[in-house]
Amino acid sequence: MKPRIKKISVIGSTGSIGVNTLRIVEKFPDRLKVVGLAAGRNLPLLARQVEKFRPARVAVGDPLLIPALKSRLKSKKLDILSGPPGLVSLARDQEADEIVLAVSGSTGLHPALAALQAGKQLALANKEALVMGGELLMKAACGLGNSLIPIDSEHSALFQLLEGKNSEEIVRLFLTASGGPFLNRDPRSLSRVTPEEALSHPVWKMGEKISVDSATLMNKGLEVIEARYLFQTEPGRIKVLIHPQGRVHALLELKDGAVLAHLGIPDMRIPIAYALSYPDRWPLRLPALSLPELKGLTFLEARPQRFPALRLAYSALDAAGTMPAVLSLANEIAVEAFLSRRISFPRIVELVARVMDAWKENPAASLEAIAAAEIWTRRKTEAVIQRWR
Amino acid sequence: MKPRIKKISVIGSTGSIGVNTLRIVEKFPDRLKVVGLAAGRNLPLLARQVEKFRPARVAVGDPLLIPALKSRLKSKKLDILSGPPGLVSLARDQEADEIVLAVSGSTGLHPALAALQAGKQLALANKEALVMGGELLMKAACGLGNSLIPIDSEHSALFQLLEGKNSEEIVRLFLTASGGPFLNRDPRSLSRVTPEEALSHPVWKMGEKISVDSATLMNKGLEVIEARYLFQTEPGRIKVLIHPQGRVHALLELKDGAVLAHLGIPDMRIPIAYALSYPDRWPLRLPALSLPELKGLTFLEARPQRFPALRLAYSALDAAGTMPAVLSLANEIAVEAFLSRRISFPRIVELVARVMDAWKENPAASLEAIAAAEIWTRRKTEAVIQRWR
Repeated sequence: MKPRIKKISVIGSTGSIGVNTLRIVEKFPDRLKVVGLAAGRNLPLLARQVEKFRPARVAVGDPLLIPALKSRLKSKKLDILSGPPGLVSLARDQEADEIVLAVSGSTGLHPALAALQAGKQLALANKEALVMGGELLMKAACGLGNSLIPIDSEHSALFQLLEGKNSEEIVRLFLTASGGPFLNRDPRSLSRVTPEEALSHPVWKMGEKISVDSATLMNKGLEVIEARYLFQTEPGRIKVLIHPQGRVHALLELKDGAVLAHLGIPDMRIPIAYALSYPDRWPLRLPALSLPELKGLTFLEARPQRFPALRLAYSALDAAGTMPAVLSLANEIAVEAFLSRRISFPRIVELVARVMDAWKENPAASLEAIAAAEIWTRRKTEAVIQRWR
Repeated sequence: MKPRIKKISVIGSTGSIGVNTLRIVEKFPDRLKVVGLAAGRNLPLLARQVEKFRPARVAVGDPLLIPALKSRLKSKKLDILSGPPGLVSLARDQEADEIVLAVSGSTGLHPALAALQAGKQLALANKEALVMGGELLMKAACGLGNSLIPIDSEHSALFQLLEGKNSEEIVRLFLTASGGPFLNRDPRSLSRVTPEEALSHPVWKMGEKISVDSATLMNKGLEVIEARYLFQTEPGRIKVLIHPQGRVHALLELKDGAVLAHLGIPDMRIPIAYALSYPDRWPLRLPALSLPELKGLTFLEARPQRFPALRLAYSALDAAGTMPAVLSLANEIAVEAFLSRRISFPRIVELVARVMDAWKENPAASLEAIAAAEIWTRRKTEAVIQRWR
């Protein structure tokens, strides 16, 4: 029987996850067809992708970019959307079976929710959507796997390890972290870290935001929050392990003492393909993980006391409500401020802590409450940065 | 709802697996009840087990031991069976739901087959049964899990990793081996190895036969054969990795490059309990595997060219028919000869190779053909030993 072709839209197609998603599409042309593409402002690459994959609809980050994109395209009849409403409209587009949501930052929340509400399969690489609106998304999803599949490598690993298990069997979930480029560096020297240094991750090649998040370990903090919502697990059961070799992506401790682990080469095409092929797997023909070449796998407990970003993540989960959204947004702004050299590296996490401390109301996380928290967080974060300058 | 009590018989109750099985029964008295016990000649321990667990039927290795056992028991009305027919009769005993088959060596084949033919759940620790009669057993079993669950830690690990996977997803199965006590020893010094040295395994505390098998790596060879039948896998997909830390019991490579691993402390109660609780898991309250305490997990490919016992196992699979039975029986006799100081340590594998070389007929593995091969192998093996003395 010929397999049905799955029609996908890639929101965030010019970023690292987007580009890798399209490499998977190229590998499996009889399984996947692109019907929608969205990117922010990388018009040259977006235009090449449009010419190659011929989607029916495209979105760009800003309406002002539409003419520039059009001028790069041969086909003049393409339907071009723009801005946040464009992403939402692409996410619920009738044509698509599955949405790969690969934008970075808070932009992801609304399209994620729209895709789930429209009954799409959502392959979610944007972790901020889940951090900010975890409860809303999980309510809109009809169960993990059925409509929501994580692309984050750790969560894809856990999703795979948890398949067929019932929640009573589970004792603990372990997310691994490489520890980032500054794990063994004297903390006092971190104030001199440049954006270039922070962007050079030891294991994965990734976008800017997530690379800085990995260096502060806020990425792992966001992942703890993500795991809590995705897998509906008490935060106390989610642990972080520093694993510098980056080959074990996650582990699962079961009630009888057995521990299951998910290993692989650090290549995002593996979790992306799984989110597209689930419940099947496709032969990716990547280099196999060579177990004999692994020179000693180690795991070090990452105690929240030692890593302030992790401590903030657990305390955001403890506070619940809109606090995870405030953490995520404050961090997003802080990372931008660091990348534009307005604040130093250690100030990123410090800034998030200050803003979280000042967030006293903390209502439940409705879309309206998140929007209000966003406005407040932007203003507050900017105010602290101004005070520091 | 109160869980139904599972009635089990333990065949080989005084060995290492048997004793650990009864420790599980003690931990879960509302889940398990012992209805049958069988042991070879350790009457003091068997008598204590009978008094404690009060099974309806008991078997000893030899009819001559029945009076001695009786004299040790308060209850005089116990039904006492003996010898190989006693084991078979216990294995198909109407009372039992599940049979834990924990004898060592070729004795296991007939009771294993009897249990499956009688429709019992069979928790199989005896690997020789599967090596000798793999095809017969798998034909008698109604699918792995439904009626046959391996207890060997590596196979229990693979069984768990394979759950819910279809065979098309699987690329390779990896069995790990500690490498035994002589891994880093100069091969020329092995002729002076004493039984005492061979019995001191670096990771697991086990019975004598399996300890010597681990030192020669024949244990891993038997496990390769076992895996081939249990999981119906081509031999070329089964690989052995030397993993001296002994915490990763098996790994599974999937089509998309993902590798799943099963880890745990080296305690046989985990796989034994799983074979009894399947598809559930019970809280064993053993010390948790401490990932941070693992000081560098390593894996070294064990090439059959380097390890003669592995080479013999793969070539027995290649020859198929009764060749695996000949390998298993010749090895069993060779180990006994080494333990009684009749041959040196390196001669064990050499003896197996000689006997396999001389086995020219190699008919398909019916029960009759296996019985004939057994008679021939005993005679041939003894003849080679005699020639060497």
